[in-house]
Amino acid sequence: MSENVKQLIFSYLSGFITENKLRRFEEVLHNRTRYITVVLEDLYQPHNASAVLRTCDCFGIQDVHIIENQNAYTVNPDIALGASKWLNLFKYSGQSNNTPDAIRALKEKGYRIVATTPHKDDVVLQDLPLDKGPLALVFGTEMRGLTNTSLELADEFVKIPMYGFTESFNISVSAALVLFYLTEKMRSSGINWKLTESEMVDIRLNWAREVVKRSDLIEEDFLKKLNPSDNE
Amino acid sequence: MSENVKQLIFSYLSGFITENKLRRFEEVLHNRTRYITVVLEDLYQPHNASAVLRTCDCFGIQDVHIIENQNAYTVNPDIALGASKWLNLFKYSGQSNNTPDAIRALKEKGYRIVATTPHKDDVVLQDLPLDKGPLALVFGTEMRGLTNTSLELADEFVKIPMYGFTESFNISVSAALVLFYLTEKMRSSGINWKLTESEMVDIRLNWAREVVKRSDLIEEDFLKKLNPSDNE
Repeated sequence: MSENVKQLIFSYLSGFITENKLRRFEEVLHNRTRYITVVLEDLYQPHNASAVLRTCDCFGIQDVHIIENQNAYTVNPDIALGASKWLNLFKYSGQSNNTPDAIRALKEKGYRIVATTPHKDDVVLQDLPLDKGPLALVFGTEMRGLTNTSLELADEFVKIPMYGFTESFNISVSAALVLFYLTEKMRSSGINWKLTESEMVDIRLNWAREVVKRSDLIEEDFLKKLNPSDNE
Repeated sequence: MSENVKQLIFSYLSGFITENKLRRFEEVLHNRTRYITVVLEDLYQPHNASAVLRTCDCFGIQDVHIIENQNAYTVNPDIALGASKWLNLFKYSGQSNNTPDAIRALKEKGYRIVATTPHKDDVVLQDLPLDKGPLALVFGTEMRGLTNTSLELADEFVKIPMYGFTESFNISVSAALVLFYLTEKMRSSGINWKLTESEMVDIRLNWAREVVKRSDLIEEDFLKKLNPSDNE
């Protein structure tokens, strides 16, 4: 589907959306980023995965990559509060270890792979450079942390500074801390972190499809009218 | 009990504690603060209260004030991971509304009362001044937020900046974000945020009592030897 057609469909669907909601779309869209992306490796507690999605939406992260090795990913709707419909979710599953494919795909897109775990080569969150290129932050399971595969394939390691007797955080808390800190730093930097116009066209259309009831039928109908010849 | 006696008891109990653990005590103690304190108003989900205690320990907050109005406070040991034994917990209960007493006590100790909630007079977290005096950060219930009493008695209001469709965080996530941001800012500021020597003497003794098995009997025995005349 060409960008032009996407724009036509969006503009047709937007007739079914309130002015307020459309303004909210633009506001959120202009704060969205793909400069930082999130990778969840094999989380098995749905409330943790869901809490991370909610945090991503809050801090303007558009893409979440979900690796399913042992555990199928499910969303807990009470905790995600519908956040997943505003995000682009990429799933990697089907093999016994899907981590290499996920990481390769992200490296090809130009991401630095940053494992969020203490490590001999780690830096504290405040010292992780932002301006060396886009970051894919990898978060591991609640019980075992990141797999050896992701530790081997990671380019960098980051940890949260801690000063007490307790030496770990819940995964949803870690993710929130890392994302809050890095997105705030990104927003106040000179980095070009915003979506391109063409990315916005895609996401705007996805969101319209989410909020308009039976948007599939409306869209089909509109496309028929647009190209009457297709139906003859 | 005089400071001198406390020191004698600690030094006796420390004979039952490993060198490693004692070093850890000093490391943690020198990162502890009362410049920032946490007030939990009537939380009813034990896993949330417990997660906040764990976060307080991680970021070096020594005191947590717990207001019980409708809901009795309980700790979930799986989530708190023993954090409560390293903290000083102050409970306010017994009346139908214990918030005024708690806030009055904190104001008398010189704390600015900062409600963590969006409000017409709020500032974003990054704009909350740290150098205007010690802060008591008040967190409310999961369902209803802060009570009108605490909103009326608060001196300042702070909110977390958000950029998505979702407009709230889980209480344990909010607390972690606020405490991480403010304690990091505090540690890199010129503010005098550390405990006094005399406060350290108290806390050191509490910790020793927590880790030495049957410390009550050992202490009793030691005090008898120290003042044999008391037993005649």
